[in-house]
Amino acid sequence: MLEHTAILTLSCPNRPGIVAAVSTLLFEAGCNILDAQQFDDIETGRFFMRVVFNRLEGGRPHDAIAAAVAELAERFAMAFSLRETARKKRVMLLVSKFDHCLADLIYRWRIGELPMEITGIVSNHARAHIASTDLGDLPFHHLPVTRQTKMEQEAEIWRLIQETRTDLVVLARYMQILSDGFSAKLAGRCINIHHSFLPGFKGAKPYHQAHERGVKLIGATAHYVTPDLDEGPIIEQDVERISHRDTPDDLVRKGRDIERRVLARAVRHHLEDRVVLNGQKTVVFID
Amino acid sequence: MLEHTAILTLSCPNRPGIVAAVSTLLFEAGCNILDAQQFDDIETGRFFMRVVFNRLEGGRPHDAIAAAVAELAERFAMAFSLRETARKKRVMLLVSKFDHCLADLIYRWRIGELPMEITGIVSNHARAHIASTDLGDLPFHHLPVTRQTKMEQEAEIWRLIQETRTDLVVLARYMQILSDGFSAKLAGRCINIHHSFLPGFKGAKPYHQAHERGVKLIGATAHYVTPDLDEGPIIEQDVERISHRDTPDDLVRKGRDIERRVLARAVRHHLEDRVVLNGQKTVVFID
Amino acid sequence: MLEHTAILTLSCPNRPGIVAAVSTLLFEAGCNILDAQQFDDIETGRFFMRVVFNRLEGGRPHDAIAAAVAELAERFAMAFSLRETARKKRVMLLVSKFDHCLADLIYRWRIGELPMEITGIVSNHARAHIASTDLGDLPFHHLPVTRQTKMEQEAEIWRLIQETRTDLVVLARYMQILSDGFSAKLAGRCINIHHSFLPGFKGAKPYHQAHERGVKLIGATAHYVTPDLDEGPIIEQDVERISHRDTPDDLVRKGRDIERRVLARAVRHHLEDRVVLNGQKTVVFID
Amino acid sequence: MLEHTAILTLSCPNRPGIVAAVSTLLFEAGCNILDAQQFDDIETGRFFMRVVFNRLEGGRPHDAIAAAVAELAERFAMAFSLRETARKKRVMLLVSKFDHCLADLIYRWRIGELPMEITGIVSNHARAHIASTDLGDLPFHHLPVTRQTKMEQEAEIWRLIQETRTDLVVLARYMQILSDGFSAKLAGRCINIHHSFLPGFKGAKPYHQAHERGVKLIGATAHYVTPDLDEGPIIEQDVERISHRDTPDDLVRKGRDIERRVLARAVRHHLEDRVVLNGQKTVVFID
Repeated sequence: MLEHTAILTLSCPNRPGIVAAVSTLLFEAGCNILDAQQFDDIETGRFFMRVVFNRLEGGRPHDAIAAAVAELAERFAMAFSLRETARKKRVMLLVSKFDHCLADLIYRWRIGELPMEITGIVSNHARAHIASTDLGDLPFHHLPVTRQTKMEQEAEIWRLIQETRTDLVVLARYMQILSDGFSAKLAGRCINIHHSFLPGFKGAKPYHQAHERGVKLIGATAHYVTPDLDEGPIIEQDVERISHRDTPDDLVRKGRDIERRVLARAVRHHLEDRVVLNGQKTVVFID
Repeated sequence: MLEHTAILTLSCPNRPGIVAAVSTLLFEAGCNILDAQQFDDIETGRFFMRVVFNRLEGGRPHDAIAAAVAELAERFAMAFSLRETARKKRVMLLVSKFDHCLADLIYRWRIGELPMEITGIVSNHARAHIASTDLGDLPFHHLPVTRQTKMEQEAEIWRLIQETRTDLVVLARYMQILSDGFSAKLAGRCINIHHSFLPGFKGAKPYHQAHERGVKLIGATAHYVTPDLDEGPIIEQDVERISHRDTPDDLVRKGRDIERRVLARAVRHHLEDRVVLNGQKTVVFID
Repeated sequence: MLEHTAILTLSCPNRPGIVAAVSTLLFEAGCNILDAQQFDDIETGRFFMRVVFNRLEGGRPHDAIAAAVAELAERFAMAFSLRETARKKRVMLLVSKFDHCLADLIYRWRIGELPMEITGIVSNHARAHIASTDLGDLPFHHLPVTRQTKMEQEAEIWRLIQETRTDLVVLARYMQILSDGFSAKLAGRCINIHHSFLPGFKGAKPYHQAHERGVKLIGATAHYVTPDLDEGPIIEQDVERISHRDTPDDLVRKGRDIERRVLARAVRHHLEDRVVLNGQKTVVFID
Repeated sequence: MLEHTAILTLSCPNRPGIVAAVSTLLFEAGCNILDAQQFDDIETGRFFMRVVFNRLEGGRPHDAIAAAVAELAERFAMAFSLRETARKKRVMLLVSKFDHCLADLIYRWRIGELPMEITGIVSNHARAHIASTDLGDLPFHHLPVTRQTKMEQEAEIWRLIQETRTDLVVLARYMQILSDGFSAKLAGRCINIHHSFLPGFKGAKPYHQAHERGVKLIGATAHYVTPDLDEGPIIEQDVERISHRDTPDDLVRKGRDIERRVLARAVRHHLEDRVVLNGQKTVVFID
């Protein structure tokens, strides 16, 4: 990654002149656009943009650019985010018993593939249950939960999120349903992996449902968590071919591969500011 | 295809000795097994098999083999089908306005890719609406339908099916829902192409539903028609990646490619006796 | 497609201010940017851009915009193309005996999927050999070729290209190798479909080569024709899974499906000005 | 996995009666066939079969079945293998610096997905270089190698293989070329992962070659090692889409995902006796 690189994402009502205004602002601030993608949603009249740029020698400091962007944002009624890529996002990982997604995310982080700081791992099960994953020195929090203690447990997770200044929460096969209130607090910054190709097979035991129905492909879906279970904005999906020979256990096994790559891609897209919310959908500026 | 080739498919309660019995029968009848695939459904205890064989010189005639197989079938309580591949299946194609699947099936038939006899084309629209497809000399039947005349129209199709000794009816984007009675008559020999990845997006306008939901892949499903709409046994499915840029019209365009290849594969599997019903599911012995 | 829509593609040495200059020019000319994609090739220092825009009411006429763009192009040393989408590209189709790609392209054109004018079909075989495709009223030219008459035959094709103001030549399974001189004349506007996943299995009978080698996937490659056979810039590729059961004939059959969809996508990308040459490679701004 | 399950694989010159002989033998020995797949190679006249069976109560002991199979094998000139699934294959993993395949295989083994015993890990680099993978208690052997010491190093690996009764050697991104002699010793039981879609981009730095050529998909190939580098029988391949935006580093990253899933599948197929050599090709009886 180049020095002094920053990423600007924005959305606003579409009107002529937005690209010219943004690109001129950056040019005049002494910046060079490295990548830019945009999208006009004709249905809603909304405009979306992602710009990666770096400051050339003699360019204006980041704060000055941020101030100029904020001014522009006001003029065009933009929602925007601006982040220097040197400041990595801070991520908390939640997991229950199946740790294949957790192990995969941690490995990718260790080899430098995912640009993030891991603020901790939270599980409703004891650390001994995460036996196949090397957690190293990562802070681990065992927060068991029952129907009676759910409110307290979520409050404790929320406290950890705030204390660690966590930007993103990843439900890496965390098999608890977040309460409406907690989901709302985490809107747009909590990614779940559901082990089916949504909207097919919502709810529990999707591989068993898929086996029962006799589908010829199974899939997984990474989406932002919302109070509507399995209805949040979809970030990434993928599928794989199965056959009549596959038992539900085979589907679980084949599904693990799909889940971990779908979740890893979604997390990566989020970490690189490639995902912008568009109502109940997402705009994903793919590399 | 080799001379004197025949295909035997069967299903029965599983018990030891079935493969030995079938292969010994064929060996003693002077036949050589060219391909054999089997499947034990552990859940239901049912056994499925597909055997392709040809008669060697001096082998017993087809009728004698058929009689021996029938006897064996009785002993093992087998449902079976036995067909000489020289006798191609007879297929009727039903279509409404969108003719991409029809054009594709006819082209594949013309170049010898699909081993079938086309007994006719039925549409609820006039021939002039099928303007982009060269129907050649294929019999075309314009059978318009309204809610009031549906019973008569289906009776007329049924009459054509019987008259032409049609083995298989293909709904190649035929946008009418068959009545329960008609579906029942065609059980296991009527294939529909639904333009979504079932069970997602049942019913009307699936591409618009998919766009609305913001999925990242769209698909198509070929299934046997049953009285339960979009719930029949699935034969084949496939998907393709889409993005936030795709309008519903783009999905319709991309979907055409998926639909025609999924339907062509399902029809091919059926024509080659590769599909065996297993309750509400299918066993597909893929090449 | 919207009225007064135009597509600008350009490439030039990268330097700050290009996006600002282009977007400001269009804004000041009374145009609205509908889509924009760009790419910085860090290795070569070259910048690529595709902009789709339409003129708003009161916007400057196309000729004035074209003049302004030409001026800008000079300033930034840009290679560029500017086309009103209402002016469709003119396409000539070359074919030998296998007509599955031809039939597919013609069908897609008939239903309005490919925005082009077909200027004619050229084959080294007689029209009777293209028996499975309905050519309708499209001009057909039978131009047989032998080693001795190749120069004359190519001269005749060239005459037809000029006479019909053909923009793009598509080798839709045209099994003759173009001479170096002819390839050079058609640089950047002649697309070939090769029936392998290049660079694997160059040259003749690639499916037989693939069968011989025992690969587990076969593919097809659409590329611009250059004097170096099978070495031209790749526009699109795709693959499909095969197995040990597949004979070379099966590969030919499965390959037809890959070939026609890869070629159709490549042609579509070209027709929509999505492909920009980058040395021996292509930049493809995918929708 | 059921008790007393065994897998028989065989290949022999094709002739009528093989399936009957095998299935009758198993039936009479008191066994039930759970799965059977076969393949006739028409080109070579060779027949291949894989049978999974279990002994029913009162069935003959494994040794007796083995003796009967050996007798049958002699009669039909069969090459065969017979293994009780309870006896897992013993696997040695070789690795250099990139440990993503190693980490993946070990994780799959830990959660019980790959039925194998790991006999040890060998690397030409020190254990400290395998920093991102938790090796646990697995024996690790640092065996550095130079051109001068290659013969001794291979002799030492060979000694370890024999000492640990290793059945299969996996080159999990082991970046040393095995000598011809060592390759010959390991014929049919050494799997390598090559980071390209062979036969494209043989040799060193395949992702850089792919980037240079401008292909639109990259892939990986798992194959048995032979003295002919990158020419061994292919077991499994897969690909993923890339774009002009991808730098060689991006290809390396995307490639890691392909490599590890292709290698894991190939190893799994081998461990389950699904792969049978057919000259320079493989027959893979996929589940």
